[in-house]
Amino acid sequence: MKYELYYWPWSPGRGEFVRLALEEAGADYDDVARGPKGPDAINKLLASKSLATPPFAPPILKAGKLLVAQTANILLYLGAHHSSLAPKTEAGRLWTHQLQLTVTDFMKEVQDTHHPYSGDLKFEDQMAASKITATDFLENRAPKFLGYFERVLEQNPSGPKYLVGAKLTYVDLSLFNIVEGMRFAFPKAMKRFEGKLKRVVALHDAVAARPRVAAYMASPRRIPEKSGTFRYYPSLDE
Amino acid sequence: MKYELYYWPWSPGRGEFVRLALEEAGADYDDVARGPKGPDAINKLLASKSLATPPFAPPILKAGKLLVAQTANILLYLGAHHSSLAPKTEAGRLWTHQLQLTVTDFMKEVQDTHHPYSGDLKFEDQMAASKITATDFLENRAPKFLGYFERVLEQNPSGPKYLVGAKLTYVDLSLFNIVEGMRFAFPKAMKRFEGKLKRVVALHDAVAARPRVAAYMASPRRIPEKSGTFRYYPSLDE
Repeated sequence: MKYELYYWPWSPGRGEFVRLALEEAGADYDDVARGPKGPDAINKLLASKSLATPPFAPPILKAGKLLVAQTANILLYLGAHHSSLAPKTEAGRLWTHQLQLTVTDFMKEVQDTHHPYSGDLKFEDQMAASKITATDFLENRAPKFLGYFERVLEQNPSGPKYLVGAKLTYVDLSLFNIVEGMRFAFPKAMKRFEGKLKRVVALHDAVAARPRVAAYMASPRRIPEKSGTFRYYPSLDE
Repeated sequence: MKYELYYWPWSPGRGEFVRLALEEAGADYDDVARGPKGPDAINKLLASKSLATPPFAPPILKAGKLLVAQTANILLYLGAHHSSLAPKTEAGRLWTHQLQLTVTDFMKEVQDTHHPYSGDLKFEDQMAASKITATDFLENRAPKFLGYFERVLEQNPSGPKYLVGAKLTYVDLSLFNIVEGMRFAFPKAMKRFEGKLKRVVALHDAVAARPRVAAYMASPRRIPEKSGTFRYYPSLDE
């Protein structure tokens, strides 16, 4: 089966968590909005008055007749169908998903650093507020989230190589993506953070070295980081 | 098995989504932080250096040896173990969960109306920003989210009574809780919204009339709405 991924083509954004899972699983997929149909294919899905399960927002994955949205939900689905992405036990699946939902929470706080008032308003109209939010994010929130993932690695009874058990899961790919995004958006702050994130950085490097991930990151399928959820505004980086 | 729920005792908050599911399922549970152990029981779990699956934040559900956190993840677990809370098919379970994750997104935006800069700062120190965020929330975001749930009911092939299929699921209980919270926090705005939310309001009323939900809401187990995720500041209600 060939999956269809629907996500805005202008930045990696939330779609990247899904792309990394599809790539690592070696799954066949079409990144629809980057092809001839363009972003209108997404708008059509969002505006449909006839779908039984209308999605609220992308990313959206079409898997045969199934339409699955919400990043973490898509990964939950992929984890159940690709044994290389998630454990088989209920406890393992729930723990992996729990960590992924904390990734979701983190991404919303990243988004809020440059759009504290609303995603509907332009960055230029909320710059002063962004400085306040980003300062708190770098002082309190980012260290709390990143330190949490470091602690999960440290407390993993199977060792600190992966977040869940002794094998890679989709949430390791997501943590890799967070490190990539933080280095892009907050290079100075992230450099300082990394001193206390040895296990997170080692996991990032191990994921980066995986043949399928490395091939993907070097391919044109990878969209370079730009104005998406992770954004580089030098004034927001301490 | 008697579940243990861990959530801050001072407001319904995110814990309420879990309580409603436990109550509707007729499950036996201990609301630990409201008992003799108090909120310290939560702090102990959060600070543990020995847990194999350390939670990031409450709500946390202890189910035998299993420790499950993240509201939507707890509901995913409960839905799999109580047939009155979720469909059995994979497609049904994913769709219910997808809607629940949109509830999660909505709750974060509710929180941001009174804490736009950071949850770490006091409301008093971010009042002017709150007015801007709340105005956008009431003009754009809340109508978008609530209108989405109305459309999901409208497009449900099994009819508009429930969000998923022809039977109640946990996400119906969550939507009931959102209506309760919005009426508390934004009474004027919500009154106006409800004119366009006939199906959502009918679902709220049907949930409120369910014997277990009605008994719960009238019991001391229900914490009255106060300064939690939903907060009533007259200045933020248009």
